[in-house]
Amino acid sequence: MRQRYAVGVDFGTLSGRAVVVAVDDGAELGSAVHPYRHGVLTERLPEGVPLPPDWALQDPEDHLDVLRIAVPAALAAAGVDPRDVVGIGVDATSCTVLPTLADGTPLCTLPGLRDRPHAWPKLWKHHAAQSQADRINAVARERGETWLGRYGGRVSAEWQLAKALELLEADPEVFDAAERWIEAADWIVWRLCGRETRNVSAAGFKGLRQDGRGPSPEFLAALHPALPGLLAKVDGPLAALGARAGTLTAEAAGWTGLPEGTPVAVGAIDAHVTAAAARCVAPGRMLAVLGTSTCLIMNADDCHEVPGVCGVVDGGVSAGSWGYEAGQSGVGDIFAWYVDRALPASYAEQARRRGVSPYELLDSLAAEQPVGGHGLLALDWHSGNRSVLMDHELSGVLVGLTLATRPEEIWRALLEATAFGARTVVEAFTVAGVPVRELTAAGGLTANRLLLRIYADVLGRPLHVLDAAQPAALGAAIHAAVAGGAYPDVLTASEAMGAPHRETFHPDPARAAAYDELYAEYRALHDHFGRGGTDVLHRLRALRNRAHPTP
Amino acid sequence: MRQRYAVGVDFGTLSGRAVVVAVDDGAELGSAVHPYRHGVLTERLPEGVPLPPDWALQDPEDHLDVLRIAVPAALAAAGVDPRDVVGIGVDATSCTVLPTLADGTPLCTLPGLRDRPHAWPKLWKHHAAQSQADRINAVARERGETWLGRYGGRVSAEWQLAKALELLEADPEVFDAAERWIEAADWIVWRLCGRETRNVSAAGFKGLRQDGRGPSPEFLAALHPALPGLLAKVDGPLAALGARAGTLTAEAAGWTGLPEGTPVAVGAIDAHVTAAAARCVAPGRMLAVLGTSTCLIMNADDCHEVPGVCGVVDGGVSAGSWGYEAGQSGVGDIFAWYVDRALPASYAEQARRRGVSPYELLDSLAAEQPVGGHGLLALDWHSGNRSVLMDHELSGVLVGLTLATRPEEIWRALLEATAFGARTVVEAFTVAGVPVRELTAAGGLTANRLLLRIYADVLGRPLHVLDAAQPAALGAAIHAAVAGGAYPDVLTASEAMGAPHRETFHPDPARAAAYDELYAEYRALHDHFGRGGTDVLHRLRALRNRAHPTP
Repeated sequence: MRQRYAVGVDFGTLSGRAVVVAVDDGAELGSAVHPYRHGVLTERLPEGVPLPPDWALQDPEDHLDVLRIAVPAALAAAGVDPRDVVGIGVDATSCTVLPTLADGTPLCTLPGLRDRPHAWPKLWKHHAAQSQADRINAVARERGETWLGRYGGRVSAEWQLAKALELLEADPEVFDAAERWIEAADWIVWRLCGRETRNVSAAGFKGLRQDGRGPSPEFLAALHPALPGLLAKVDGPLAALGARAGTLTAEAAGWTGLPEGTPVAVGAIDAHVTAAAARCVAPGRMLAVLGTSTCLIMNADDCHEVPGVCGVVDGGVSAGSWGYEAGQSGVGDIFAWYVDRALPASYAEQARRRGVSPYELLDSLAAEQPVGGHGLLALDWHSGNRSVLMDHELSGVLVGLTLATRPEEIWRALLEATAFGARTVVEAFTVAGVPVRELTAAGGLTANRLLLRIYADVLGRPLHVLDAAQPAALGAAIHAAVAGGAYPDVLTASEAMGAPHRETFHPDPARAAAYDELYAEYRALHDHFGRGGTDVLHRLRALRNRAHPTP
Repeated sequence: MRQRYAVGVDFGTLSGRAVVVAVDDGAELGSAVHPYRHGVLTERLPEGVPLPPDWALQDPEDHLDVLRIAVPAALAAAGVDPRDVVGIGVDATSCTVLPTLADGTPLCTLPGLRDRPHAWPKLWKHHAAQSQADRINAVARERGETWLGRYGGRVSAEWQLAKALELLEADPEVFDAAERWIEAADWIVWRLCGRETRNVSAAGFKGLRQDGRGPSPEFLAALHPALPGLLAKVDGPLAALGARAGTLTAEAAGWTGLPEGTPVAVGAIDAHVTAAAARCVAPGRMLAVLGTSTCLIMNADDCHEVPGVCGVVDGGVSAGSWGYEAGQSGVGDIFAWYVDRALPASYAEQARRRGVSPYELLDSLAAEQPVGGHGLLALDWHSGNRSVLMDHELSGVLVGLTLATRPEEIWRALLEATAFGARTVVEAFTVAGVPVRELTAAGGLTANRLLLRIYADVLGRPLHVLDAAQPAALGAAIHAAVAGGAYPDVLTASEAMGAPHRETFHPDPARAAAYDELYAEYRALHDHFGRGGTDVLHRLRALRNRAHPTP
């Protein structure tokens, strides 16, 4: 029987990548990466309009370029016959959201709105809607909105509603002009197949849709009298992950080099499709995407409110299960902060001499330290805490410093702190009745073997490491295979096409026992600084903010 | 009337310095510095015998070289007639202590004992007697020794008794051969005038002599059956500060270039004579010697037990008052640790480009930060706490770190932490009924104007800064003037000859108020980590020590 293929396209923060994989086993046959021409717009629009701080926009044309350039390139690299492609799937960062006309035309492409910042797609890390999020949380708490518990009691400034409220308040004309308010992944799928769909994952995790409906008009009206108008902009047809959104239009066939009529999968969120690539779709298999921050994804049979979870959504990771997402707000960025702000010149010089990165140097110096040998303990809150404490006004703590403390010891303490943070989340799941049976790591930080060893030891369980160069794109391809009918569902497709483990880190019993002791100290410090033992971190931040009044 | 002069000789850790000053007003007319040929012996004896870790010895011949070289050089530089010198005074580091024969011959100069490490003078920072100090403290507590409260409840491993017990246990033959066990300053005075004296300051602060007697034979016997033998080795005649120990012998006259018969003052401790140089002899005038660590010296009319004081001794700073010494175990060494272990390469490069030291760069970047603007708070315990908590197993803490935290912000937080530490000591004095009326800073860190401004603001009181290049040597010269009969007592001589203030830092009311708020946070954190709120710092240290077993 003739081999068949699936195409997955992953839209990241700075670039898009396409992969062509075998439908049988997910083997990657070709791939291509296309960096966005405009990258992330943080300082000005392409034509020069300046942007305020905390803004982050994207150009939708950059996304279409990925379809026009990376997809054909990947097909060429794979050397396959496009007629053997059973489907194409798309994932994107989220919540990345844009206003469009009723036909999907992005408002920012209209001549009259090109210089209006709010007409552009807001990238996930657009952080200018914090005050709106604060009010959303306050009003939801006050009104006792039942969905709030599904989001750990607090919704994010990054999500659809905060960004929509910001749009309404800051540029009501653009809000009115927006006939649709749609996730980037869903918009790209619309471009591919000419039919609007809304994937249940983004609708649930980022759009607050629970139990068949989104926030009520009354709730929205309590935030702003015109906000109920949003409902008509987001009412597009919901679709399950792995379902077929439609088939390629002639125009999109021309872009991609695939035949018109090729099935197109419903859009999805990048970290969530990675669970399929990592064979983490079955309940209890947790995927940890370790990067600048950490995203934890897992399916379970039941719905539980887990403290600090980002969200729990029916079918949010795959149809038929409750999908959970949790996270740690600072991981790789804490390590980067250390290297940028605290690595001594002599260490930088030593790394240069050895021809390694500062990260590799620190890892190699830290690798052989016995557990607890540095006498240090850190709280990994340099970027706040968005796991069980859900408090982004917390800050980092480092205790145990002596005149003998060396940089590689602080380094190791920071690696360990993020591992303790991960364990805190895993234990919160367990305590809430959502057992974590298996743990697989993916993401950029899986290049760091010391980190993985520490995670296995701290978590006291085997840590599988995903072996996939483009795991999100592979996940999108798995969804494409389902949409194309090659598999009955995402779970089955994931088991067949998911990537193998590069390796598994098993905990060392002695180190794990020593870490149990340190973890108890971490939790005590965590609760003292994070749960009201002292409010000093908030007071220090308030003093800081008072000392630097915003203009 | 013909101008008269006094000579002061200060024996430091690495060098000795002599000054010649006018008796009228203390003006410095000439000075000379002689670095010790053998510096500090930490790795081996001059003839090669290796030393264990934590050892620090000196060569007594190096001290005599200072008398032979620096004193004549200072006289020559001053261009004065040696016959116009009314007296010579000596101070030294303490507790620096050596075993000698009955005639003052150091045991380490005897051919049979030259290769015995315990026969050599032990420098103040010889730290190999900690286990002996621990036992001294335990036994004293158990027996309810009343003198223990005069030392804040804990004696130091650096002091005479711990070093003597170490000597007895480690090399009983040398202990037996030692007919005298004497402070370096007293030994040098003995060399100068041919007569043994014991200054009441070292006898009290370092020799545990209180209310006319030292530790009892019963107490000593409880530590080691042969230890009461120490009493006969330390029973030399006590003498008050500023008293005349004797007059120069012909031999010492030959070394120094001063006439035979020149009055020689009783020996003294370096930081304590600095109080005279700083006109801090009157009760309530505190001297802060800011250096690697901080030493706080003050006289008061009464004896109070101040928590964490290093010692309170009748006549210990000047006859007729109770002298107090307190301190902070880590100050300049914390700053040095930061620059050595955490200053990023880009900052080192920037300092190089600007042609300034890393310290100056950090100060200049930190100078304009508003109080509290960094959102940080540190505990200055990197070298333990030897002020009110008296716990050298504590360690440093840093809270409030964010991804935006810059090196100059951490730097300022560390400077502030030591200022909060100083305020803690000053407040402990006040609470114990020993009011601090005035504060004068001396020492190497007075070169740092930002630090001084922070201290004035944190302490909320004017901070005078001593203007003397060689304050300890000037203090020794003031004692020489008293011993030579030019003044009736040290207080009068100090007022006349003490150095002026280079400047006075006055607190800024707004900054002082802001620091009151931060200081309250410091004290809360201080008590939480240092007074049993949590014992995590001790447990982390225990884990560290367990992970690195000593061979």
